Amino acid sequence: MESARSGEAGRRGGRRARREQRLAAPLVSLPTLERNIPVYEVLDEEGLELIHEASMRILEETGIEFRDPEALEIWKAAGAEVTGERVRLGRELVMELVATTPEVITLHARNPERTVKIGGRNTVFAPTYGSPYVLDLEGERRYSTLADLEAFHKLAYLAPALHLTGGITCEPVDVPVSKRHLHIAYSALRHSDKPFMGATTARERAEDTVAIAKLVFGEAFVEANTVMVSVCNCNSPLVWDATMLDAVKTYARHNQAVLLSPFVMAGANTPASSVGAVAQLNAEALAGLAFAQAVRPGAPMIYGQFLATVSMKSGAPMAGTPEISLMNFMIGQLARRYKVPWRSSGMVNGSKLVDAQAAYESATTMQAVLLAGASYVFHSAGWLEAGLTASFAKFMLDAEQTEMAYRLGQGVSFDDFEDAMAALREVGPGGHYLGTAHTRARFQDAFFMPELLDNNSYEQWAAEGAQDTAARATAKAREQLARWDDHAPALDPAVDEALRAFIKEREATPPDTVS
Amino acid sequence: MESARSGEAGRRGGRRARREQRLAAPLVSLPTLERNIPVYEVLDEEGLELIHEASMRILEETGIEFRDPEALEIWKAAGAEVTGERVRLGRELVMELVATTPEVITLHARNPERTVKIGGRNTVFAPTYGSPYVLDLEGERRYSTLADLEAFHKLAYLAPALHLTGGITCEPVDVPVSKRHLHIAYSALRHSDKPFMGATTARERAEDTVAIAKLVFGEAFVEANTVMVSVCNCNSPLVWDATMLDAVKTYARHNQAVLLSPFVMAGANTPASSVGAVAQLNAEALAGLAFAQAVRPGAPMIYGQFLATVSMKSGAPMAGTPEISLMNFMIGQLARRYKVPWRSSGMVNGSKLVDAQAAYESATTMQAVLLAGASYVFHSAGWLEAGLTASFAKFMLDAEQTEMAYRLGQGVSFDDFEDAMAALREVGPGGHYLGTAHTRARFQDAFFMPELLDNNSYEQWAAEGAQDTAARATAKAREQLARWDDHAPALDPAVDEALRAFIKEREATPPDTVS
Repeated sequence: MESARSGEAGRRGGRRARREQRLAAPLVSLPTLERNIPVYEVLDEEGLELIHEASMRILEETGIEFRDPEALEIWKAAGAEVTGERVRLGRELVMELVATTPEVITLHARNPERTVKIGGRNTVFAPTYGSPYVLDLEGERRYSTLADLEAFHKLAYLAPALHLTGGITCEPVDVPVSKRHLHIAYSALRHSDKPFMGATTARERAEDTVAIAKLVFGEAFVEANTVMVSVCNCNSPLVWDATMLDAVKTYARHNQAVLLSPFVMAGANTPASSVGAVAQLNAEALAGLAFAQAVRPGAPMIYGQFLATVSMKSGAPMAGTPEISLMNFMIGQLARRYKVPWRSSGMVNGSKLVDAQAAYESATTMQAVLLAGASYVFHSAGWLEAGLTASFAKFMLDAEQTEMAYRLGQGVSFDDFEDAMAALREVGPGGHYLGTAHTRARFQDAFFMPELLDNNSYEQWAAEGAQDTAARATAKAREQLARWDDHAPALDPAVDEALRAFIKEREATPPDTVS
Repeated sequence: MESARSGEAGRRGGRRARREQRLAAPLVSLPTLERNIPVYEVLDEEGLELIHEASMRILEETGIEFRDPEALEIWKAAGAEVTGERVRLGRELVMELVATTPEVITLHARNPERTVKIGGRNTVFAPTYGSPYVLDLEGERRYSTLADLEAFHKLAYLAPALHLTGGITCEPVDVPVSKRHLHIAYSALRHSDKPFMGATTARERAEDTVAIAKLVFGEAFVEANTVMVSVCNCNSPLVWDATMLDAVKTYARHNQAVLLSPFVMAGANTPASSVGAVAQLNAEALAGLAFAQAVRPGAPMIYGQFLATVSMKSGAPMAGTPEISLMNFMIGQLARRYKVPWRSSGMVNGSKLVDAQAAYESATTMQAVLLAGASYVFHSAGWLEAGLTASFAKFMLDAEQTEMAYRLGQGVSFDDFEDAMAALREVGPGGHYLGTAHTRARFQDAFFMPELLDNNSYEQWAAEGAQDTAARATAKAREQLARWDDHAPALDPAVDEALRAFIKEREATPPDTVS
């Protein structure tokens, strides 16, 4: 019999004690992951150049649409060939502009200890984004509210390996659309001290978000430093629309970071070919990057994509497929060729429940993205149902999986190798290691010990209620939300007052944008 | 909102039609995976040599126990230093013996179309092994039976990416232990025509399995070719016991393949150190390989390990942890250093249910093992609860995930790149690809389309019964078991008769071994 459970050691009791210990445990917040593992590359030099060349030809020959008069003027001034809304970009122009993108971005948190770096060997993890529904703590799928969003911000604050609080983790549909961005930013800044994400649904909302950041960080600091990340999707194929471009322009002018991400439904809005899809999205992302640099040279922009493949039978978006992994590997290689930070998506999946499908697809994608060397791993916690639903249970599970991805990214250490070999000589054939001094010294951190994954015996698991993983994770989410009160991040009351006053004033102002 | 479901295409109906099509579909059996992706390596040359050197010193200085008088005689004859049961092996002797291990093994199936290769760039996938329990089609966990085993053999036969039928996928506890191996081998050979796995619980049982193979393949063919794989675990730390050594000797003498696998509960039976554990298991596996070569130079042996990490809090074995991925990457590098085929475990996990935990742990491990370049991916389907339970639902899900791993292993193709770029020029900015000739031509195989993962809309999923993934997989298992009758592999009635007669005769013989 080949079964890992033979030789099982005693491990009864202690569960209540561990729980108390956990509740009293200090807040852990991991610094930026400095990857100490190789990047995984599937393309040889020739393949990489084939894709680059194809992307250049797309931008030169087919061109790309910028559906925004101001953007077209910016392109003309930069020397692009503009015909109507079609912009054709010579490769020299594109590469010259892309070259002014910073290779590494320092993203400041309101708590300087939570400031992170993005790009090069630096990787950060951010929660899911934009779901109109939540799968709540009662297991019900319903429209999400501001209270749900606040809860997700609290959970992100407490999650060791999540480097960002996030932004619109779920849509607060109980808040009017035109004022939603104010409450999202306030919640992120109030309930966490990690970096946050800004609004991109209208120019004035981006401006508001910058104004809010200035109340927290100070005006001069914001203009000189990057304190938030926002996400602008290209409408594939080959269209950047006015709403997104307004946000890009606003954030670029204020020196704030943007993920310039083609939204790829491979096969529907790209060719039905992995390499073809990558050539197209590369052209789209580079055009966005180049545009942002034309707006403000040196603007902290992040290359990348949102990637799904589309079922050619049903039209449904799919996650966790082999082609997505392969495309992530290729996109990482392109980002390194251009020396730019890049984003991908970690824990994406199409499941309606926190079940096996959700986890197969999420884990497969996360590991590929980590080994591909992504700088900004978006959707690292909570994503369900192709992003339509944010789940509290999945948030907790993903956050723990992300801690494991972080540990994997730290690579192999030989620090205690001599001691380990000494322990081996001490134990010898047929012996046991659990009592050795080396094992006792390494007790806490030799091997990652997940809390939410139950590896106890069947009998113990059954005695404890035979819960599935989602149920355990929901219980943990409740526990963490209670724990937040003991660990709430400090916020200067004067700043809090200023933020509330700003929101009140903006709420009294009619919006420029209706929806 | 960043959600993959926006832009959703119509995909109603057609489910019944697809089901009928599936039932009528011809049997798909993928050939050996010839990996067309790079191997992922975490150690630099120096780190690799540090581990190799430590393993050599373990074998030279501490030595390893072979608890079998005949094995000790073989070692003495080979020139090892033998003191009691302790064998100390000079590195020249070890490396000289290991060098006669074939780099690539051809594993013959009774249907020559199912013959596979193991080693080098060749990877095969095999089902789970040895579970005393099943999680059955009613969702009940109970002791397994011969009928369950037969069902697993049928499912393995029908699974496109499973290259082996397996052996004792679950323990047929309704068959007496001393005769169990006969029925296991018969079931594997009767219900499938893929390569199978042999017994290792006693010398006579290994001999019986070889005798059964000879009835199917012919005596001369078996002695000249490899037609089965068996698994022998080293009792870590540093003990090879008599039962396992009897099986190794038997199979080596008959030219049959054996997985020589230290059974690693890292932290309990190895040092609490990833590199320390790898140094130890490398020494153990190499000693096993060298021994098999001392028995018969050129015997088709497979290096590797079974890997779990142990929770230092509870003593529970863990799967899917970052250290397991890192160790798999290192072990792959060592196997390539020694130019030997190697095994690892794919879909391992500690969950009691086919839930999120089962899938997180399984998917994480499988992807690491694939990128590590494993030759024989054991436990690729069905494993649950640290191997104590074999699950039908998980078998189906894992088998589909394994198909996706297979696809990933095929890597990137530029074959239709020019056509894809032509499609892009045709579609242009803002267009749609679904109607293009290129997309229609690539309809079937551009992107892998899993059957068991539901990516339809919430509404459609709810209308179809709101099933979780395990429920869908169970239904699929039932469907496949019914489908087997239409696709049962032919078995020469004379051979079948001879097999039954052999089993009957052996059942009438008192066993040499009691348990």
